[in-house]
Amino acid sequence: MALLTGIFWFILACMSRPFIPLHLQPESDIPLYAQLRDQMRALVHSGELLPGDRIPASRELANQLQIHRTTVATAYAELESEGLVQGFVGRGTYISESSAPREFTPPPREAGGVLRWEALFADERAGDGLSRLVPEVPEGTIAFISARPSEEFFPVDDVRTCANAVLKREGREILQLGASDGYGPLKQVLLEMLRAEGIAAHERQLLITDGCQQSLDLLAKAFLRPGDAVLVENPAYPGALSILSAARVRCLPAAVETNRSRQNYAGLDMRAVEAVLEQNRVKMILVTPDFQNPTGTTLPVSERQKLLELAMRHKVPIVEDHIYARLRLRGNPLSSLKAMDRNGIVIQIDSFSKVAFPGLRVGWCIGPERVIERLRLLKQSSDLHTDQLAQATLAEFVKRGMLEKHMKRMIRVYARRLEVFEKAVAKYLPRGVEWTRPDGGMSVWVTLPPGLDAGELLIHARERGVLFVPGRYFYFEHPQTNTLRLGFAGLEERDIVQGLAKLGSVIDTEMRKKQKGGRRAMVEHPQEARSRVALI
Amino acid sequence: MALLTGIFWFILACMSRPFIPLHLQPESDIPLYAQLRDQMRALVHSGELLPGDRIPASRELANQLQIHRTTVATAYAELESEGLVQGFVGRGTYISESSAPREFTPPPREAGGVLRWEALFADERAGDGLSRLVPEVPEGTIAFISARPSEEFFPVDDVRTCANAVLKREGREILQLGASDGYGPLKQVLLEMLRAEGIAAHERQLLITDGCQQSLDLLAKAFLRPGDAVLVENPAYPGALSILSAARVRCLPAAVETNRSRQNYAGLDMRAVEAVLEQNRVKMILVTPDFQNPTGTTLPVSERQKLLELAMRHKVPIVEDHIYARLRLRGNPLSSLKAMDRNGIVIQIDSFSKVAFPGLRVGWCIGPERVIERLRLLKQSSDLHTDQLAQATLAEFVKRGMLEKHMKRMIRVYARRLEVFEKAVAKYLPRGVEWTRPDGGMSVWVTLPPGLDAGELLIHARERGVLFVPGRYFYFEHPQTNTLRLGFAGLEERDIVQGLAKLGSVIDTEMRKKQKGGRRAMVEHPQEARSRVALI
Repeated sequence: MALLTGIFWFILACMSRPFIPLHLQPESDIPLYAQLRDQMRALVHSGELLPGDRIPASRELANQLQIHRTTVATAYAELESEGLVQGFVGRGTYISESSAPREFTPPPREAGGVLRWEALFADERAGDGLSRLVPEVPEGTIAFISARPSEEFFPVDDVRTCANAVLKREGREILQLGASDGYGPLKQVLLEMLRAEGIAAHERQLLITDGCQQSLDLLAKAFLRPGDAVLVENPAYPGALSILSAARVRCLPAAVETNRSRQNYAGLDMRAVEAVLEQNRVKMILVTPDFQNPTGTTLPVSERQKLLELAMRHKVPIVEDHIYARLRLRGNPLSSLKAMDRNGIVIQIDSFSKVAFPGLRVGWCIGPERVIERLRLLKQSSDLHTDQLAQATLAEFVKRGMLEKHMKRMIRVYARRLEVFEKAVAKYLPRGVEWTRPDGGMSVWVTLPPGLDAGELLIHARERGVLFVPGRYFYFEHPQTNTLRLGFAGLEERDIVQGLAKLGSVIDTEMRKKQKGGRRAMVEHPQEARSRVALI
Repeated sequence: MALLTGIFWFILACMSRPFIPLHLQPESDIPLYAQLRDQMRALVHSGELLPGDRIPASRELANQLQIHRTTVATAYAELESEGLVQGFVGRGTYISESSAPREFTPPPREAGGVLRWEALFADERAGDGLSRLVPEVPEGTIAFISARPSEEFFPVDDVRTCANAVLKREGREILQLGASDGYGPLKQVLLEMLRAEGIAAHERQLLITDGCQQSLDLLAKAFLRPGDAVLVENPAYPGALSILSAARVRCLPAAVETNRSRQNYAGLDMRAVEAVLEQNRVKMILVTPDFQNPTGTTLPVSERQKLLELAMRHKVPIVEDHIYARLRLRGNPLSSLKAMDRNGIVIQIDSFSKVAFPGLRVGWCIGPERVIERLRLLKQSSDLHTDQLAQATLAEFVKRGMLEKHMKRMIRVYARRLEVFEKAVAKYLPRGVEWTRPDGGMSVWVTLPPGLDAGELLIHARERGVLFVPGRYFYFEHPQTNTLRLGFAGLEERDIVQGLAKLGSVIDTEMRKKQKGGRRAMVEHPQEARSRVALI
């Protein structure tokens, strides 16, 4: 039958369930590991595989399916990052308890197949790029994966005080429908903060949003039509790439140099920017001048000036992602593009997510009045306005000086972690590995020796209890598969040191294998795989 | 010069500022009143007109510009609804104090004209349809304009108790980045509530959103391509029309009958639905079966069944807007389409906005798992996830029985108001005026005798201190200009009676004028004017 249909059927035996029906199509465009992952997921969702079921070891399954072990391992890794399966050292891999619907919910009766939903969807893919924001990290794992603030320092009592105060004082106003441009008191507080940073904006130049992700979404709605060209950093924040890809625009990547020796600074390559602008009609430039995610690089003032001049010459608006800028851990702050902007061509997006709390969805957007009014209308038709309890609470948090206090504290914590991180990196990562030296933000970018693959490395690192995000997830094109992002801000100092020691030893082992074994089969790295890890 | 350029320049004298430069272009596509409004607004923004400046009386300006007085009055009315000008009975109309930037903000220096932003926008219009959500209502005015809950009954202390409890108990989790499908405890609470309503869904069939507006936006992103056909109620909620128009889909209107005598019920006309479905390839049906905004009509169970059958026959998904359904003020609740749906073709959207607090932006969406997963990805790339403090607070509010208590109370209040409203309507509105008899929701739909124009009526009503929303704002096409929406839920009983007495007398006067004066010049009613009033 397999031969007749061109589909290979494998009936596999595993411990607790006798058969797992899997059929992989080697001739398909979809990479094998993705087929495997999707079929396993479907088996879980359909109840063929139940919580607690053991699935075959990757080596075992690879043998039976006659595919490479790393293919199986990659599929398993992705299923694990989704929380669908869980590996236990020495005990094998199991379907997670949390993968099934809770006990009191009825079984997923999907009133089968009356409508072919896939055929009705407007696009073959949706919101590709982020997926599970909060991956399940197995106990005991040291996860350098996130660029989220460290929750153990959240001043929960301060937030509670603020929420209490604003509900007591202005509860009715907060709970009633609000203005689509934002809660007045928050806008005033932000305008003051911005003035201190050299940005003299008035209230009609400021829009409150649900965060930078929404600001980007609104900007895409306001400016971008399918086919428009947008200059993006390469690598870049995947959430931005996700929006641009959904908007069907052409992303023109300009390289972010991570090696200081190639130009005087590590950061967006201005010659690349100039070349892109000269050869294309670019609609928008998207840039993160400070502590860029994922590379951690910062654009020097001279290059900011150059970028502004280039944008002016080509009459292209700049969207400045300012989300990490306030997390400067050493050195003097640089003027933002918006503060340097004399011609009103910069739209700055920012948020409380990194400096305070991402669970409160509040960010903002500063730009020319006409742009802000357009974004306001789009904001309104997107979700009317941003949650007012969060807005009012954060306004109070800023007004009472609590944000400043919290930021000071976090900057001390992160600065210490960065210091520890850098010492450990220098100590444990083998010669030949390079890394960026960010002065702030939350992550460091690591470049392995050519030929080493971060995706493959992750499989071995995971076995040793260390996680990171392979660099390829951040590239729009020309992925450098020998890169990876390490978030340093979310881990305790001891874990940073232990994790890097382990990681160093894994890299060392792989480098030695490489030197001995010559060329090995590579893991597939489809664009699509991006959607299975946490990249925020 | 005026003759040479084809532009009429009028130099006008008014009391406190000697000249107002206005130039109207009668030959333009833009209606005169809109030109006037926009130019006045520009004069305020540029500082030519200052807060406290008196502007000419509408009659005076109309004479000088040689245009109809209602044109000027309409422009003024819109500027007033924007909060830019303010009228005082007997004292004239003035530029509002709030129109200017606050004192400490620098003047709006827009770094003039380096980029032609309008040329960069992706579309000639954005998010048309809602505009100012919270219009400024002059003191002493009785405003039947909103369909918002009555804030004087907000149980602020209960909300504060809940916010406190959840921050104390799970503060760190709440403030940290969350799951894109929603906060777990809230999902569980909602699933329980839905089960009680005959909807057995599991957690992967439920997505938390920022409210129905966002649910609609996500549905449009998921399903609609430019040119797709969507069946909409006519009239309908303008926020939905706004999203559909931005998505460049073809809206195919099916009439909502407001006169019970034309069919056995007032509500969506099933013959119209059938005709649309038979003659078009419809991608989606958008319907509000209970207490539809704006008409207040409810679809009988037999017609719901018919709608489901029609949708099944034509294989078209139904999006059921359930936002008002829980506000049933009399009679027995009907099964929702989703509860009746045996084939998984209904996606139900709902929210806490009407039953609790619109300032907390939390709603949800129930549908087949494949649809919800698609929407989840889009939600994630739109704004990562919904605010967690709001989600957790509302989950607690439901769990503690506070929502039920609050709803019981509000239903008592609204039921009494509806009763008072209906008595007053019957007493004060002249013979020949018709209105719907909703059993719930927040608004009643009024039909004036043919030939009477609700837009014109509004000008006179405003002078008497009464506001309502002209019906034409709710139509996608074929606007019935003799209709209007009266929100009854947001006003105290005394105001309802007084307001309807005044409104009745204004209608009476206009009807008499009409009978005497024959045909009068009409106010322009461009689609575009929709964007200047509050329609939520």
